[in-house]
Amino acid sequence: MKRVVVLLSGGLDSATALYWARARDYQLTALSVHYGQRHARELVAARALARRAGADWVSVRLSLPWLRASSLVDRKQRLPDLPAGRIGKGPIPSTYVPGRNMVFLSLAASLADATGAEAVAIGSNAQDFSGYPDCRPEFNAAFQKAARLGMRRVAEGQRFLLLAPLQRLDKAGIVRLARRLDVPLELTWSCYQGGRRPCGRCDSCKLRARGFAAAGVNDPALSR
Amino acid sequence: MKRVVVLLSGGLDSATALYWARARDYQLTALSVHYGQRHARELVAARALARRAGADWVSVRLSLPWLRASSLVDRKQRLPDLPAGRIGKGPIPSTYVPGRNMVFLSLAASLADATGAEAVAIGSNAQDFSGYPDCRPEFNAAFQKAARLGMRRVAEGQRFLLLAPLQRLDKAGIVRLARRLDVPLELTWSCYQGGRRPCGRCDSCKLRARGFAAAGVNDPALSR
Repeated sequence: MKRVVVLLSGGLDSATALYWARARDYQLTALSVHYGQRHARELVAARALARRAGADWVSVRLSLPWLRASSLVDRKQRLPDLPAGRIGKGPIPSTYVPGRNMVFLSLAASLADATGAEAVAIGSNAQDFSGYPDCRPEFNAAFQKAARLGMRRVAEGQRFLLLAPLQRLDKAGIVRLARRLDVPLELTWSCYQGGRRPCGRCDSCKLRARGFAAAGVNDPALSR
Repeated sequence: MKRVVVLLSGGLDSATALYWARARDYQLTALSVHYGQRHARELVAARALARRAGADWVSVRLSLPWLRASSLVDRKQRLPDLPAGRIGKGPIPSTYVPGRNMVFLSLAASLADATGAEAVAIGSNAQDFSGYPDCRPEFNAAFQKAARLGMRRVAEGQRFLLLAPLQRLDKAGIVRLARRLDVPLELTWSCYQGGRRPCGRCDSCKLRARGFAAAGVNDPALSR
């Protein structure tokens, strides 16, 4: 059976990517990375989601001191507070984590190369790449090419795919897809803060709320 | 002044890349990664080399359980023991660490993106890429392209370079370049084992010895 390594943060997007791969009959390895993000709360969500999906769960901790440049890591910085309609339309936000997806995809490809998985899946989507350069389809395509040239399994004649099934979807589209795939939405965590309940004010909460509203779905994570 | 992040393992190749960048008047940040390799001894060498070169030194520790697939990490595996002339001519050796250069370059590019460095330098060379797919010039070119698409500094109009100054050199050529650049060769550590003195038997020792011999240079690391 073919295997995929899914980058699983515990948020709506990566949970949907996990269930998308599950519906394609992949054997699942979920990879979660703790890099000092404020919202380590999402790792608890990631573990619960992996278990529910029947995935192997691998979690690694990165201690990269230079990531304090990001307000998602440095708790002394204020998180941005824009109206939902302006998120992603201005300059790259302070929540940008330098090279994050590049590092995450490299770790996932390394794990795939070590374990014989034929693919890596990531939840990048159209909502993100309006703000973060490393969420764009062009980046994913270029990374797939580099990974193929660098991996043992490809040098030995096997194939490798970088799957980004949400790449063309906005948040409402992701919510609709998640419902079709029976993603346990109540287990997902999107908030940039790490409290017991989503803050409702950060960019991520606002985008999520707008997505659920546009899809006409109640967010079960809010009624826990 | 322009800044470069140099991946510095502490071996001959990366030390030469460091001094190459120094000769080009870059401000230097040396990045060393401990990923559980047998030869953590080389990190001691890396720190000494960085200090001697006047570089900032950043060291990070990665704990990636799946790297035990490599005999360079798993001490229970035997290291390969081929005659020097056959190293790199057969299948990919067991010392291959899955996706290592991809992960290292991602970390270096992340650090560059966070600190405003315009380049990343790596000591990949013609000797390596006869055995490891992620040391080939095609891999480096594809990775540079992906990194450019993923980085904030490039999205904001600055440039980014992946420098691989040893890319076309064999070991003898690297020894000759290192001498021209006044690399403190006595500080470098290439051996795959981690003892007090190089073992003289592993692939890395054999390639190094052959390089010094072909360049007509005595290896000062052997006479310490």
